[in-house]
Amino acid sequence: MRDFYVSRRDRAAALIARREPVVYEGGEYADGLSPDRLQQYEQNGFIVLENVFDADEVSILREEVEAMSRDPDIRARPEAVRERGGEALRSIFRVHELGKHLAELPRNPRLLDVARQILGSEVYIHQSRANIKPGFRGKEFYWHSDFETWHVEDGMPAMRAVSCSVLLNDNNTCNGPLMLIPGSHRQFVACVGETPEDNYLKSLRKQEIGVPDECSLRLLSEDAGVTPVIASPGSVIFFDCNTLHSSAANLSPWPRNNVFMVYNSVQNMLVEPFHGMAPRPEHIAAREHVQTLSPIAVHS
Amino acid sequence: MRDFYVSRRDRAAALIARREPVVYEGGEYADGLSPDRLQQYEQNGFIVLENVFDADEVSILREEVEAMSRDPDIRARPEAVRERGGEALRSIFRVHELGKHLAELPRNPRLLDVARQILGSEVYIHQSRANIKPGFRGKEFYWHSDFETWHVEDGMPAMRAVSCSVLLNDNNTCNGPLMLIPGSHRQFVACVGETPEDNYLKSLRKQEIGVPDECSLRLLSEDAGVTPVIASPGSVIFFDCNTLHSSAANLSPWPRNNVFMVYNSVQNMLVEPFHGMAPRPEHIAAREHVQTLSPIAVHS
Repeated sequence: MRDFYVSRRDRAAALIARREPVVYEGGEYADGLSPDRLQQYEQNGFIVLENVFDADEVSILREEVEAMSRDPDIRARPEAVRERGGEALRSIFRVHELGKHLAELPRNPRLLDVARQILGSEVYIHQSRANIKPGFRGKEFYWHSDFETWHVEDGMPAMRAVSCSVLLNDNNTCNGPLMLIPGSHRQFVACVGETPEDNYLKSLRKQEIGVPDECSLRLLSEDAGVTPVIASPGSVIFFDCNTLHSSAANLSPWPRNNVFMVYNSVQNMLVEPFHGMAPRPEHIAAREHVQTLSPIAVHS
Repeated sequence: MRDFYVSRRDRAAALIARREPVVYEGGEYADGLSPDRLQQYEQNGFIVLENVFDADEVSILREEVEAMSRDPDIRARPEAVRERGGEALRSIFRVHELGKHLAELPRNPRLLDVARQILGSEVYIHQSRANIKPGFRGKEFYWHSDFETWHVEDGMPAMRAVSCSVLLNDNNTCNGPLMLIPGSHRQFVACVGETPEDNYLKSLRKQEIGVPDECSLRLLSEDAGVTPVIASPGSVIFFDCNTLHSSAANLSPWPRNNVFMVYNSVQNMLVEPFHGMAPRPEHIAAREHVQTLSPIAVHS
């Protein structure tokens, strides 16, 4: 398969125009975004939906994440990724299989239908995780495109995946909210540097490879600026797999936990990683255990 | 001199009630804060004054800071402190003597009169610096009380100093604005750990000693929360020497430069540092070159 998005090879940083659409035609769904909202997603590369889940629904999810964070069995698993220099958890991967309520979340039609609508096909979960950003301790995520990593390290062929972040806490100025560069999804930032073997063991704690250069970041954010998502629990952010995003450390006393799920199109299944890298483990990038999602009935 | 605020000695973290007033009686000044604002300062331990300087005044200061940041002579001085792991400047100390316009700034009655009013006496500059937080690169300042350091490392006897931060750029959610814990100035957080010699060479880049424990931070912020200062250039923040504050890294493309000056009461001059430490250099803590400030005439 030809690699249209070469990154981390022996060349300088570059901006490459996106080849694929942002919103695909032909997905089947009962509910989805309104035409206005869909257009907003297409234009900015993300959309924030408020009050998708009510307080009760959120607290069930939040409590499940908190219980998992304390569970010694979970903490001993490879799915549990720690912050640098400590025992504090940064992420728990594959929560859509490890959790009971979290397992139902990606099949909730309020989310699934939006993913199908955007990707124009049936979908499956490429990756899921609880991102845990405890008060005072949660560390930053520097700017990156998820697709850059998924393409280079996992062999995701095309930009036909959408990330979905379900906010379990209030996201405010002080606890490291998600920040996005509107419109950045239309350019692929080829990054400098080669990928070491087993890079993920380090990069999930602090990304140092696959980091966009400052010049590209400046170009992309010069006019568009940066949008911080200040929103309440139960809000949902959908963002394109190639939208540049980051979040600062959490210096506040308030935790900032969210559930992050990546819907990938069944027409965009992983191939062998480019440039001969070994595939990352299944809990980081679903390759073998892929299940097309069907909606579940929910009481809303 | 008896040390009422013991910190970094062989004991656990502790909260010690403040002994001194926050607002002192008897300062001479032409202009100052209104009674309402003064009360707000007393209660919260800080106050934000908007539009103290107009756009022209700000750009003169901003350009001077930028010119100093590029000046190889300045960059070679001990006053120029770099970020960890790089050549990027984090702070330039003693700007009230190194700069031309910056030298006049502390004597501007719009600032000086507020400092005199709060401290109830004549004042001098204990420390000044330009804090430079460039886009994408500026690192965080974790929670701390300035007084804790000035007391332990410089021998500042009492809580009778006020910090003044003049904003040279827009401070927004994304570029690491100052965050303060309202009311925290009424408690002294005694910190754990001994101070290594020449600690300042490291601590000005990243503070690891004199850091409040998480339990105290949680107690102090539980009800009061955390206030981020989102404000435009030309705004000024006055905050008590003991108010806990921090700021996140700057992940945005926008620089966040400010001028930080510490007014100390002439009745609170430095003594020998407690516990036999060697004094820090003059450019970090004025000890010999102390000049009582008189107001200059300004056109406003």
